[in-house]
Amino acid sequence: KVVRLAVIPGDGIGPEVVAATVPALHAALEADGHRLDVTQFDWGGERFLQQGAAMPADAADLVKKRDAVLFGAVGRPDVPEHELVWGLIIGLRQQLDLAVNLRPVRAFPGVPTKVRDTDGVDLVIVRENTEGEYVGAGGVAHAGSGHDLGIEVAVHSRRVIERAAHQAFALAGRRSGHLCLVTKSNAMRYGYPLWDRVVREVGEHYPAVRLETVLVDAMAARMIQAPRSLDVLLTSNLFGDILSDLAAVLAGGMGMAPSANVLPGADVPGIYEPVHGSAPDIAGKGVANPVACMLSGALLLDDLGHTSAARRIRDAVAGTLRDARHHTADIGGNATTADVASAVLHTMESQ
Amino acid sequence: KVVRLAVIPGDGIGPEVVAATVPALHAALEADGHRLDVTQFDWGGERFLQQGAAMPADAADLVKKRDAVLFGAVGRPDVPEHELVWGLIIGLRQQLDLAVNLRPVRAFPGVPTKVRDTDGVDLVIVRENTEGEYVGAGGVAHAGSGHDLGIEVAVHSRRVIERAAHQAFALAGRRSGHLCLVTKSNAMRYGYPLWDRVVREVGEHYPAVRLETVLVDAMAARMIQAPRSLDVLLTSNLFGDILSDLAAVLAGGMGMAPSANVLPGADVPGIYEPVHGSAPDIAGKGVANPVACMLSGALLLDDLGHTSAARRIRDAVAGTLRDARHHTADIGGNATTADVASAVLHTMESQ
Ligand SMILES: CC(C)[C@H](C(=O)O)[C@@H](O)C(=O)O
Ligand SMILES: CC(C)[C@H](C(=O)O)[C@@H](O)C(=O)O
Repeated sequence: KVVRLAVIPGDGIGPEVVAATVPALHAALEADGHRLDVTQFDWGGERFLQQGAAMPADAADLVKKRDAVLFGAVGRPDVPEHELVWGLIIGLRQQLDLAVNLRPVRAFPGVPTKVRDTDGVDLVIVRENTEGEYVGAGGVAHAGSGHDLGIEVAVHSRRVIERAAHQAFALAGRRSGHLCLVTKSNAMRYGYPLWDRVVREVGEHYPAVRLETVLVDAMAARMIQAPRSLDVLLTSNLFGDILSDLAAVLAGGMGMAPSANVLPGADVPGIYEPVHGSAPDIAGKGVANPVACMLSGALLLDDLGHTSAARRIRDAVAGTLRDARHHTADIGGNATTADVASAVLHTMESQ
Repeated sequence: KVVRLAVIPGDGIGPEVVAATVPALHAALEADGHRLDVTQFDWGGERFLQQGAAMPADAADLVKKRDAVLFGAVGRPDVPEHELVWGLIIGLRQQLDLAVNLRPVRAFPGVPTKVRDTDGVDLVIVRENTEGEYVGAGGVAHAGSGHDLGIEVAVHSRRVIERAAHQAFALAGRRSGHLCLVTKSNAMRYGYPLWDRVVREVGEHYPAVRLETVLVDAMAARMIQAPRSLDVLLTSNLFGDILSDLAAVLAGGMGMAPSANVLPGADVPGIYEPVHGSAPDIAGKGVANPVACMLSGALLLDDLGHTSAARRIRDAVAGTLRDARHHTADIGGNATTADVASAVLHTMESQ
């Protein structure tokens, strides 16, 4: 079988971590007799500067012809942030209607963390991915009058909450049977109370899953204080954004956290991307940690049914990380991106 | 001089931590020849159940007759949360127009934390306290039709951002000269970009302060990974709520984090309250950590100009915490609330 992969390296360290990941995908698939066919799209800041748009108008259609998308990162200091965010990554997530952003965090043995007792941490954040605080609605009243009023409108619809909830309950059912819903219904009166209500209703279809509802502020503290009390978290777009960066710390930091933007059950390619950004400060130096991107590649293979290839990558990453000589600077080592990439390939071959 | 204190013990562990704090305030003031005059208001869940409202309609006027308010916590399982939150604490913050909620976090020697290397952590979150996501605006469209749409409206006004910004810059100027503004302007297009703009403008009046703007997701990770890179943080109501619970972890948890709701420069009493909630699970057992409430009392004394009395409490708390026998369960010990309260009083006497 052929996996038709769209690759969007993007900006900053995006191209570096993607370049480290693609050979691992090749190798992992080849070992099962499959093949990877890569189409690269040079979308991002450079394209914006040259053509005035980070991606073409028919970008969603172009990637729909592929099985999945591997995405690096966007963001560069000389381009207005919203041109790359709305013009590319949020744009694609919303245009492809990728319902959830799955952000698993797992502590790998051998990787140092700033949090004590992270052994065995293994959780997944199910982040709603298409609306909430990210709809881009609102405006500024009295602009420039000295009385400017910024109005930001968040929209939470039953249909979208329901489909995210079904994903989360199903996932929790396959894992520990425990689901934490994270909202802020004591301070916000409409959107989050609707979340609470709808998720409770969806839960009636999953009697084997225990639903716990936690306020986002309390969850931020609990994430660090008792991460092993967590398994699957379901939350809104904004809270998922915040909590997933925080959860990454449990695994050693942003360089370790993969994600999958997916619309399960539909014939739409998922977008697989490291949670980290373009990190302009270290871009071009070859020192970025490629692990988050490689693990995103493993999620991609899983979703396409190539579970043994996915396991091959994940096991090779885990094996590689046991040895501190293969740690990049973000996790306290001095390995380069290329060192890690070749160590993972080598580990995969010798498995 | 007499300090006319309004005390609102509230629900759950609120009355327990307040009862542990008031004697310390008495003692600290007496040592300077001042006096504490306490009026207690039995507002909260019990009052709601008996009279249908958590506080009377003229609550703001009643507390305005006092110099300051010491507040415990609200929330009990048998009362709808918004009746206590909007009907009391958010209600009072907004009716008194208490511009900022100052949430200092300091790691005390001897207190264990789940985060490594917290020695010397000493930061303050300046949380905007009157609007943003907490205005209560919005609604549910198509309610009950199966197509419910929860709409949540956040409002950020220049005037309110400006006054919070002035507080934060002034504070940063008195401290390290470094201010971090926390927003999320890559995903939200109106409110947070206005924050960025207004705070940058206010900053022109404080050339000695270095302003750094950080995305809230990145800040959540940095708070744990590099807390000593932070000094004063300025942020919105919602982000302040989340980040302050998280920051408390650096000091040992929610039992350690005080706060001050204030409108500097105006003749309005501040509300001083522990960041933790009513903790119904441990209420009535006498095991709650009173430190957050005691440190809130110290902030109260500071703001009323009783700085030596404030220092007396803070030093006594620090001294007490050095000895693990005076640690409550939340920070790994088995002391009771009363143990800590009497140890602090005792330490104060022997200072
Ligand atoms: C780039 C940014 C808009 C994005 C988000 O907030 O979703 C990023 O932080 C993420 O988590 O993928
Ligand atoms: C009780 C709740 C509404 C409150 C808030 O969100 O402000 C609390 O979490 C706090 O931080 O003081």
